Amino acid sequence: MLGVQVTYLSVDRDGLIDPESVRKAIQSGRADPNLPEAPVLPTTTVITVMHANNELGTVQPLEKIGRIAKEHRVYFHTDAVQSAGKIPIDVNALNVDLLSLSGHKLYAPKGVGALYIRTGTRLRQLLYGGHHQRGFRPGTENVAGIVGLGKAAEIARASLASDSQHISMLRDKLERGLLERVPHVRVNGGLAPRTPNTTNIMFAGIEGEALVIALDLKGLACSVGAACSSGAVEPSHVLTAIDLSQEEAKSSLRFSLGRHTTESEIDFALEIIPAAVTQLRAISPTYRKEAAAR
Amino acid sequence: MLGVQVTYLSVDRDGLIDPESVRKAIQSGRADPNLPEAPVLPTTTVITVMHANNELGTVQPLEKIGRIAKEHRVYFHTDAVQSAGKIPIDVNALNVDLLSLSGHKLYAPKGVGALYIRTGTRLRQLLYGGHHQRGFRPGTENVAGIVGLGKAAEIARASLASDSQHISMLRDKLERGLLERVPHVRVNGGLAPRTPNTTNIMFAGIEGEALVIALDLKGLACSVGAACSSGAVEPSHVLTAIDLSQEEAKSSLRFSLGRHTTESEIDFALEIIPAAVTQLRAISPTYRKEAAAR
Repeated sequence: MLGVQVTYLSVDRDGLIDPESVRKAIQSGRADPNLPEAPVLPTTTVITVMHANNELGTVQPLEKIGRIAKEHRVYFHTDAVQSAGKIPIDVNALNVDLLSLSGHKLYAPKGVGALYIRTGTRLRQLLYGGHHQRGFRPGTENVAGIVGLGKAAEIARASLASDSQHISMLRDKLERGLLERVPHVRVNGGLAPRTPNTTNIMFAGIEGEALVIALDLKGLACSVGAACSSGAVEPSHVLTAIDLSQEEAKSSLRFSLGRHTTESEIDFALEIIPAAVTQLRAISPTYRKEAAAR
Repeated sequence: MLGVQVTYLSVDRDGLIDPESVRKAIQSGRADPNLPEAPVLPTTTVITVMHANNELGTVQPLEKIGRIAKEHRVYFHTDAVQSAGKIPIDVNALNVDLLSLSGHKLYAPKGVGALYIRTGTRLRQLLYGGHHQRGFRPGTENVAGIVGLGKAAEIARASLASDSQHISMLRDKLERGLLERVPHVRVNGGLAPRTPNTTNIMFAGIEGEALVIALDLKGLACSVGAACSSGAVEPSHVLTAIDLSQEEAKSSLRFSLGRHTTESEIDFALEIIPAAVTQLRAISPTYRKEAAAR
């Protein structure tokens, strides 16, 4: 609609972007196409990369991509919705010019977020009206939400190290436990650096939706794909991007842990998930076929 | 930016729009300019009129304008931020297709609002991303704010008649009291239908900002112009639109009343405002000149 060209880059099997592929994708052109002596400048305006993926928890190599963006003088934005409050963020170390985050992902109220804008970054507003928020976003501010986000960020910062240790210990226990107890299981994106709170697990031969329902009935909430596309019938585009087949993607579940997850909840999960998987596989024509082929 | 042409209509000295001027401003053209037999259709896409003005409280004749919009099959939007919760609103009686309101104006939290959309109204989203709110506004919703707005609207509806009676009685007392006690005072827009809670009063010969400060020091909060343009040095565009001179506009103050305003607060206002006006006029070269001219 705005006449802007977008280049999408591929990720590897762990879900990571190769910084060199970013460098190669930066486009440039002569400042004045009619003057052969005019300097060649980047025509790419902005590079945007998710900091951590919502379905896998995989963390992208932003430092390196940011350095490339800086070298080429291209603005660099990251969507840190999944990483803010989970892993340390230093906008200078990451070389980002713009960083967006969402409050409810770090225990702030729903419906509030923040956009970090590096001084000197030129932005144009999307909405017009009053002069609130330096003219970028008209309308009376959600004061309670903003205060809540500030306080939640303060708490997240103070407890980041201990939260991270606690949550990754439980996440590792869950993954190890499932890999020990259930055959033909794989942690998607498990080889990449990850946030401590997310794990995405493929249970070969089962229908993810059926497992979500079976676990929900026993009191464990998990999901296939992202909440933003819940109800969608297509397999997760994240999982197909890391080269999972449609069947593998549909048999993958995302489990999320948090500050308040307890060890006994993990023990409970390790009790009910293997049982539910075994039950579902017993009635799965796909799994029997696969098992027979092995 | 979108290549859309906007026609602004004038208001009369009471701040009201003449519905016939709306009718005349609707533009139309042949559906296919190359076919002389093609039907002539309106090319005006939307008419938008504020329901109640924020500085004057004056209420526009929406029913009549809405009927004209409907006749011409042009969408009709109203900004009901100042009227919602103050006077009854019936979207069918007003013939509006779209109505926007803001929570904090009716005692809901700040940072939440609502847009009424008549079934069948074709809208295009402004922001892209998730599929929240039927695709119109991506992003996790401000749940607490939304619940607060719902509850505040319920309370506003239940107490509308009694609030309105209480507030307009106090507003009338304030206006009458000032007109009796202070010479050369006028209620701007006072002849038009008005919401009960707003009054805009011109005190000839004083500098509005100085009176705001003098009253603030005594514990009474009021304003010149709108909060959205506080700090602006230009006189209110609303007041110059109803033909006030720059001097008259700058000597006008807005007082707002609410559900919790008490009669003793009005008595207090009637005590301190005349005194402050007298003091300021005594040192005003403008007022002495005007008084001499009378």
